[in-house]
Amino acid sequence: MSVFDEAIAVRRSGDGRYQVRFDERFAIVAQGGTTPAAMNGGVTVAMVLRAVLDASPHPHPVATSAHFLRVPRLDPAEVEVTWLKQGRTAATARAALVQDGQVLLDATVTTGSLPAGPRTNGELSWTGEPPRLPPIGECVNLGPWPGTVGAHGTAGYAAQVDLRMDPATTGWRRGDPAGLPEMRGYFGLREERDPDAYLLALAVDSLPPVVFGLGAAGWAPTVELTWHMRAVPSPGPLQVAARCRHVSGGWFDEEAEVWDAAGRLVAQSRQLARVGRGSRRREQAPAAD
Amino acid sequence: MSVFDEAIAVRRSGDGRYQVRFDERFAIVAQGGTTPAAMNGGVTVAMVLRAVLDASPHPHPVATSAHFLRVPRLDPAEVEVTWLKQGRTAATARAALVQDGQVLLDATVTTGSLPAGPRTNGELSWTGEPPRLPPIGECVNLGPWPGTVGAHGTAGYAAQVDLRMDPATTGWRRGDPAGLPEMRGYFGLREERDPDAYLLALAVDSLPPVVFGLGAAGWAPTVELTWHMRAVPSPGPLQVAARCRHVSGGWFDEEAEVWDAAGRLVAQSRQLARVGRGSRRREQAPAAD
Repeated sequence: MSVFDEAIAVRRSGDGRYQVRFDERFAIVAQGGTTPAAMNGGVTVAMVLRAVLDASPHPHPVATSAHFLRVPRLDPAEVEVTWLKQGRTAATARAALVQDGQVLLDATVTTGSLPAGPRTNGELSWTGEPPRLPPIGECVNLGPWPGTVGAHGTAGYAAQVDLRMDPATTGWRRGDPAGLPEMRGYFGLREERDPDAYLLALAVDSLPPVVFGLGAAGWAPTVELTWHMRAVPSPGPLQVAARCRHVSGGWFDEEAEVWDAAGRLVAQSRQLARVGRGSRRREQAPAAD
Repeated sequence: MSVFDEAIAVRRSGDGRYQVRFDERFAIVAQGGTTPAAMNGGVTVAMVLRAVLDASPHPHPVATSAHFLRVPRLDPAEVEVTWLKQGRTAATARAALVQDGQVLLDATVTTGSLPAGPRTNGELSWTGEPPRLPPIGECVNLGPWPGTVGAHGTAGYAAQVDLRMDPATTGWRRGDPAGLPEMRGYFGLREERDPDAYLLALAVDSLPPVVFGLGAAGWAPTVELTWHMRAVPSPGPLQVAARCRHVSGGWFDEEAEVWDAAGRLVAQSRQLARVGRGSRRREQAPAAD
């Protein structure tokens, strides 16, 4: 079992109730810190999806919307799943991730069936332009990056994932942000594990915050994230491309697309997040490569 | 009081409970039909937001995610609002729209504060390119369009709104779809009423389905819609631009941006919807202008 699958494991403890435990190995650790400051949002959503899919009449989480209310502690918690509808085409469940009687994350998930391959049944089919990434060999191995790694350099989320970033979107690492809120890269786990719905939930929130490209720094907490699974992904590294349309009043949006190794659009997301503290203070930007 | 405000009115009937009634004047009427087939999704979301904002500590619905489960009947219903968190920057409520003991729409809403004007407080600020629409005088007055109007030609949603469409996106009306899943137009009510959060909830789902541009026809039911309010809109007509990234397996996404008369991005949405019946059958496309 991969570290990721261990981190998102759930244990059924009653009718629609699942016990979970936040895994330090996917925590976000503040720059220079030694204790986890937060959990990666994608891992948290994947954990909730494990609980929802346990009793779903349909195999795929086609639409997942999640509001992030409180930062979890690295302790046990519970997912409470309530099915609101189980229809022939789609089923919808409400899921709350609860710790100490407080809701950490409130989600609604609609499940359905998605095409497994490029074959169509004569029905309408259309896809926009894919993102343009350089070959993976020309990309920057991000490794653990400031804002996600502790004093020991190995802890947390950034040590679990293998991110190879388009160099056009990594200038912020040497204090020279591109001036555009865009991030692009190849994404996978450091362990060998084929992509599925859970890994897509991680992939849509896998890149450094797009506002780093505008000179912002620091952890950018997600307030709300909705993602749509659009196809069953093929094995191989995923391509993730994220952009932003508007930053103001401390809020920004981040839209990500995930394409699989076979060149198909497999997931889309948009999140609303808060600009991290330390923004507009380029002298405190992360150290050079 | 405008017809729109009457249609989204709520009456508090208890702790977190609000009585509502679906208004025929915003119903979607099937082509050739005389009885409402469904409610406009935007009106339904606006109604739920009225209930949520009644007791919100913050003025603006910054993130609203809604899953559409069942088609309402034109009868009374109830919105049940449960506050999950009321914080200093954001507050989150869960809201269920219930009729005859069944959830029609399940929503989670996070409220906060948004900038009212272009002034910034020294914080990070950035916006992408606005949509390019022709002058409003060169646009097509859509009027009631097939799929939204009954035998009498005046009933329902399409009779309440004033849509002036970019002619590049209206070829489907004469059986000649553009081949691109895009819609752009100016949006307002036929009555005089300044835009606010409720009208933005309507605007993000105001255009004909983007898949009409690919030759699809028929009502395209929304499965999930999330929208973000990004600024308080100025008076005047709104510009709405919608696109799609992927259609397959009967599912399509539709992303809309709403810009106000002062040229600011005021709302963003993405929805996952089902392709309507009648797709790929251009001989049944709507009649010519």
